[in-house]
Amino acid sequence: MGRVTERRRVIRVRDGAVSERPDTLVAEEPLEIRLNGKPLAITMRTPGDDFALAAGFLVSEGVLGSADELQSIVYCAGATADGTNTYNVVDVKTAPGVVLPDINLERNVYTTSSCGLCGKASLDAVRTTARWTIDDTDGGSVPPVRLGTDLLACLPDRLRAAQRVFDRTGGLHAAALFSEDGELLDIREDVGRHNAVDKLVGRALQDGRLPLSRAVLLVSGRASFELAQKAVMAGIPMLAAVSAPSSLAVDLAAETGLTLVGFLRGSSMNVYAGEHRIALEATASRG
Amino acid sequence: MGRVTERRRVIRVRDGAVSERPDTLVAEEPLEIRLNGKPLAITMRTPGDDFALAAGFLVSEGVLGSADELQSIVYCAGATADGTNTYNVVDVKTAPGVVLPDINLERNVYTTSSCGLCGKASLDAVRTTARWTIDDTDGGSVPPVRLGTDLLACLPDRLRAAQRVFDRTGGLHAAALFSEDGELLDIREDVGRHNAVDKLVGRALQDGRLPLSRAVLLVSGRASFELAQKAVMAGIPMLAAVSAPSSLAVDLAAETGLTLVGFLRGSSMNVYAGEHRIALEATASRG
Repeated sequence: MGRVTERRRVIRVRDGAVSERPDTLVAEEPLEIRLNGKPLAITMRTPGDDFALAAGFLVSEGVLGSADELQSIVYCAGATADGTNTYNVVDVKTAPGVVLPDINLERNVYTTSSCGLCGKASLDAVRTTARWTIDDTDGGSVPPVRLGTDLLACLPDRLRAAQRVFDRTGGLHAAALFSEDGELLDIREDVGRHNAVDKLVGRALQDGRLPLSRAVLLVSGRASFELAQKAVMAGIPMLAAVSAPSSLAVDLAAETGLTLVGFLRGSSMNVYAGEHRIALEATASRG
Repeated sequence: MGRVTERRRVIRVRDGAVSERPDTLVAEEPLEIRLNGKPLAITMRTPGDDFALAAGFLVSEGVLGSADELQSIVYCAGATADGTNTYNVVDVKTAPGVVLPDINLERNVYTTSSCGLCGKASLDAVRTTARWTIDDTDGGSVPPVRLGTDLLACLPDRLRAAQRVFDRTGGLHAAALFSEDGELLDIREDVGRHNAVDKLVGRALQDGRLPLSRAVLLVSGRASFELAQKAVMAGIPMLAAVSAPSSLAVDLAAETGLTLVGFLRGSSMNVYAGEHRIALEATASRG
């Protein structure tokens, strides 16, 4: 539990020189998430923040939307034959009265009830399971989240500076939540990028901060459909990625009103959807 | 089908200048893999090589080991309400007499029958489902695969030169198979790194080339447990990654005899397991 890194022997080759030494690696272990005692999913993750990971996963699946729907999260004791706790199995109990959505959870992916499967079906599934729409205006009573390109350009450096485990292992993805003023609110690292986002969202649920309607989510890698989905399910209005988005991530952003920024590097970025939240007019005129 | 890239409108910000143009993105769509008509898994993938992806996935799961165990792979027609084929559902039929292994496929992850779940259990599961052990010596009759560090150092450039879609989108992972002489045998790109490896392995199965007992697998990113598992299940003796491995990937390599190289960049690399396949003595003496 909480073994974020582990040591292994390594043979290093550098400019023709060979040396042997211990190396620090990012830890990877399976985590089984149970819902009300029933096995639901297994994810390979970096140990630590496991309760937040489980809670966030269930937000992404549309099962949980607020802290009071969550009764308890515990490590299952006596999980091995000799009765020791591996700290790799967590059970999430929902509060009495919480109605579980009709998702095909066993397959751990959204599908429609018909066997038609396409990008459109994936988009529809997010829409039908989302607990709220993205609404950073409180129903129109406050201005939307809006960031200048200069401020956005600073965020990757702030993420990188806070990535403590990456510095030692080079092996983690990171995800961070920022305020609209660029303040770092929370950061998580994990061997799986989706886990890092689930840990952020799960902690926000536990703290009663969902939906994250004024936050910016920054991820260290690419923006896949899955990450865009997690942003939408948490009510986050803006997702920024250091690398490329996929076509389906852009489509989901356009449909849900999520602002999607990709290739956020140096003073450059691409805005794929929701550009009303980026203060573009502060920069030079359009080319 | 086969839409590897898609076009979307993008607003580009470069050094303060804002312009609007079409952008090429990596395509991402769900693929449902059915085994003998029964839904088994859904993966978000880049369309193309879908039959190879499905076949390779089933090699990784221990279901398939040779081409003659595979009877057919077809796209399921009439998959949507209006009867059109989305080309996002494939059905794999195994040959008569093929015994399906006792894996909990519904959960799409290896677990032991007891509820003990830990890294050790994950390693055990690979060992018990593997169709063969890594054997590049043909039972001791030929020398093992052995590459010099100079040759290994060349492989990432050869991978990069062959990454055609990445150049246009910046959004794909790549995986490639090389011969022990450094010749590029095959390369696949996908929005998911595990899919790129499954496509390589599935094509090898279809061509009757499993186990890949003299091949080197190179991946563009990190080496997770899942990727090491796929190498082992295909009988590949060497996995090299441009970025960091995880602790569990190293443990699996050490247990199965897989050579695992990480941080393969320029003339530098780290060897985490199976160093007898790297000609280290050709480089300078050990520091």
